[in-house]
Amino acid sequence: MTRSWWGWGNVEDAVGGAELDALLGRVRAVLPGELTAHEPPGVASLRLPGPRVTPPASLADLCSADPADRAAHAHGKAFRDVVRNLQGDLRHVPDLVARPRDERDMTDLLDWCTREGVAAVPFGGGSSVVGGVEARCDDHPAVVTIDLQRLSGVLEIDATSRAARIQAGVFGPHLEDQLRPHGLTLRHFPQSFEFSTLGGWLATRAGGHYATLYTHIDDLLESMRVVTPVGISESRRLPGSGAGPSPDRLFLGSEGTLGIITEAWMRLQQRPRWRAGTSVRFSDYESAVAATRAVAQSGLNPANCRLLDATEALVNAGVSVGGGVLVLAFESADHPVRAGLERAVELCRDHGGEPSADATGESGGNARGESAADTWRSSFLRMPYQRDALARHSVIAETFETACTWDTFGALHQAVTEAARRAIHEVTGTGVIACRFTHVYPDGPAPYFSVYAPGRWDGIVGQWDHIKAAVSEAIAESGGTITHHHAVGRDHRPWYDRQRPAPFAAALTAAKSALDPAGVLNPGVLLPAR
Amino acid sequence: MTRSWWGWGNVEDAVGGAELDALLGRVRAVLPGELTAHEPPGVASLRLPGPRVTPPASLADLCSADPADRAAHAHGKAFRDVVRNLQGDLRHVPDLVARPRDERDMTDLLDWCTREGVAAVPFGGGSSVVGGVEARCDDHPAVVTIDLQRLSGVLEIDATSRAARIQAGVFGPHLEDQLRPHGLTLRHFPQSFEFSTLGGWLATRAGGHYATLYTHIDDLLESMRVVTPVGISESRRLPGSGAGPSPDRLFLGSEGTLGIITEAWMRLQQRPRWRAGTSVRFSDYESAVAATRAVAQSGLNPANCRLLDATEALVNAGVSVGGGVLVLAFESADHPVRAGLERAVELCRDHGGEPSADATGESGGNARGESAADTWRSSFLRMPYQRDALARHSVIAETFETACTWDTFGALHQAVTEAARRAIHEVTGTGVIACRFTHVYPDGPAPYFSVYAPGRWDGIVGQWDHIKAAVSEAIAESGGTITHHHAVGRDHRPWYDRQRPAPFAAALTAAKSALDPAGVLNPGVLLPAR
Repeated sequence: MTRSWWGWGNVEDAVGGAELDALLGRVRAVLPGELTAHEPPGVASLRLPGPRVTPPASLADLCSADPADRAAHAHGKAFRDVVRNLQGDLRHVPDLVARPRDERDMTDLLDWCTREGVAAVPFGGGSSVVGGVEARCDDHPAVVTIDLQRLSGVLEIDATSRAARIQAGVFGPHLEDQLRPHGLTLRHFPQSFEFSTLGGWLATRAGGHYATLYTHIDDLLESMRVVTPVGISESRRLPGSGAGPSPDRLFLGSEGTLGIITEAWMRLQQRPRWRAGTSVRFSDYESAVAATRAVAQSGLNPANCRLLDATEALVNAGVSVGGGVLVLAFESADHPVRAGLERAVELCRDHGGEPSADATGESGGNARGESAADTWRSSFLRMPYQRDALARHSVIAETFETACTWDTFGALHQAVTEAARRAIHEVTGTGVIACRFTHVYPDGPAPYFSVYAPGRWDGIVGQWDHIKAAVSEAIAESGGTITHHHAVGRDHRPWYDRQRPAPFAAALTAAKSALDPAGVLNPGVLLPAR
Repeated sequence: MTRSWWGWGNVEDAVGGAELDALLGRVRAVLPGELTAHEPPGVASLRLPGPRVTPPASLADLCSADPADRAAHAHGKAFRDVVRNLQGDLRHVPDLVARPRDERDMTDLLDWCTREGVAAVPFGGGSSVVGGVEARCDDHPAVVTIDLQRLSGVLEIDATSRAARIQAGVFGPHLEDQLRPHGLTLRHFPQSFEFSTLGGWLATRAGGHYATLYTHIDDLLESMRVVTPVGISESRRLPGSGAGPSPDRLFLGSEGTLGIITEAWMRLQQRPRWRAGTSVRFSDYESAVAATRAVAQSGLNPANCRLLDATEALVNAGVSVGGGVLVLAFESADHPVRAGLERAVELCRDHGGEPSADATGESGGNARGESAADTWRSSFLRMPYQRDALARHSVIAETFETACTWDTFGALHQAVTEAARRAIHEVTGTGVIACRFTHVYPDGPAPYFSVYAPGRWDGIVGQWDHIKAAVSEAIAESGGTITHHHAVGRDHRPWYDRQRPAPFAAALTAAKSALDPAGVLNPGVLLPAR
């Protein structure tokens, strides 16, 4: 397999042939537009300028100046990243890509960057959709991207406490491969699972695909090691503690600005044995939301509780329904879960929901429950490839997400949808916006929006940026968070800066100065570059 | 009711009469010693020095210089605090006790303290057992204790999201009284419930009495307002977020060193309707621990999962058993919980546990389940009063707690128990140490130890300090946390300083300087006073 330098995942897995025809056919049915294919440029044609910096001899072996390598580390994997790559617009390319073998290498690299004032951009899988790994560091004379791919081992397993010491550069599948022989799983499956890393998840407070209880990677962390320019921070392995503000919670979400996470003790789970699931249709959206809220507040804690609105149900599940579809699933490694599902369905019926006849489980093994989940998961993991195929055909296809309390959701949903429609109308004339809940909490949902619109190839990045700014304003005005699990990076800064309490900004800035006195760590992310 | 200035709770509720006779009888059966009663001194006899500072006229109405008021704010409520009060040893008394009516008053008070370099010690219920509210601020010319008791309202209830905006100075019972008419509860019941406040719980990362899932107050917090010397920090109400490091997590556990929490939106729950519980006896402790671990890792999430060792079972539950007793309870506001209890009991049987015949529930209302829980809760809430009665009779009666991973628990338990026995032997010749789990996590328990030993009145504080230092060393050496839910304060500093990663200490120090440039907020807590 060959990783794509410009788009998602592996080159061999790109959408093509009959899958592409079918995809474009579905798009043509709802959107106007030419759908002309644009080929990715060859790396040679990019004519990247040479590196502006030379590593010291002691670090030379760790550093690559190969243009294809540098191009592949220039951007994350947002729609705007992929399009800019396709258009050959690589304004900010790292001068070098460094691949440390261990913490000693990492320390040496940070020492060098600190000495020379070179920006250091930590890089896991590079799946950021917020400019978090982009070498956009104009205040620095050069940029070195520090790729953690050599740190990919599960170093230790504590089966008694169900925890493992894991290196930060491990990708999702390789991590699960190493845990599977022990009957254990991290059970953290973000959509980027195949092409993102543990360190990236921790640094960005990633969300997995389970709807309740353990939603963010934060909850699965037991302790961590972080290389900072002033030394290594290692927290104690603890199941819980009340000893001062949590050290781990400062590094969780620090997005490479305070240090580079090298390894972590992670809480694991036994692999699920019992599963049961169904979907429930609603004829109006308000009832569907009320039912979802009832389930979220029931203490039943479903593994999946994904409310698709009518558009989302049609576009991504092929289901035509008036109000929405709630996808419900329960699972356990210890006990049957059918009773929980039945109670959740009962709550849905109280709100006018009609459960589907295709309920799965109670499976005590590898039965229908698992296979349905697998099917859904495959399709979920396929979405970024389809997004790339659409991007190549000048279709704006992107998502954004937030979280809010239940009392504000109705107004937020309306404001965001209207802002999106207005902005889409302004830039493309027509388009589609859909919403699903990716996670639900007792006090509110995490709505996830998808936008599809026919773009104009020579201005498509600006078109999306216009839509994104409009919906971000609507989210901010409605009291939502600028991100529930996509992180802040460089692109969410204007709204993050308003959301973040000013005294906390002062505290974070001071903490950054204490840990990264030269200000070389991922400048411009979370905080202004100095 | 009159609050005791020297001991726990209300004067009228002190242990006396037949209860005292019975308590002393139980102690005489296991411990030697005189058990001579010592009377608390009158406040007048303390001859407190006058205040070293005069508030500006604009703040005078908020400030009390009354000796009884100052004496009642000098110490927390640890064993060593109560004994020092009984012995009239009040070396560190605040010069003034200020009671702000609102955030404006709070800001004015902090402005004045900052201007004059006067230490400001935030005070909720004053139930600290770690010197967290003690006016031990020798580097400052004077100390003002800021008591939040006037901020005690539930200001707003959002029944849809099940959350409320609550002022930080509210005590547990008054808070629940304000929520009850809405059918809601915060469901946070630390042992100090009656005499501690929401702000204190948040500032110290308090633990409630539920064993799993929502153990610390951290999990129940939606957003908060904090008055700092550089401005008010207000986080956004969100059910979840991934926008940078969590602002709330910096203030949670900050113990009044970064700001004073004035109000918070808290996540609430419906009051439970279904309950079921039982207790399971084990003939050896290792099997009891293994069974408890199995339940903790099952995903059943019991409300109570309290493993008492044989000594604890005998001393505090009157049960004679070889290995230990596991107290199990489940509860829900939405659905029956009997199946969960049955599965947990099955897991216990797998490890040789014998369930008691007195299982309670399935109660769908105010039936036996609740009344058993209430009985237990009353006895639990009575313990601090009994501790005071023992202290007055020269009996060392104190607790300490930690948390660790399951793989290290056996060694930690042995090391801590041996250290305690050795230290007790050194200072008192004989004594008792018992252990229970207050909380259990999938990756480890939170063991809670009780010590009873016959003290020598003229050196009893030093005797306890010797024992405490020995067990704290054992905890640190065994990889436990110096506190799971008692906070750090001033007394846990030596071990906290070793536990906390050095780069995080640097970051926290920098954050403190940014928020509290004059270093007046609770100096000596968490960080060295400047």
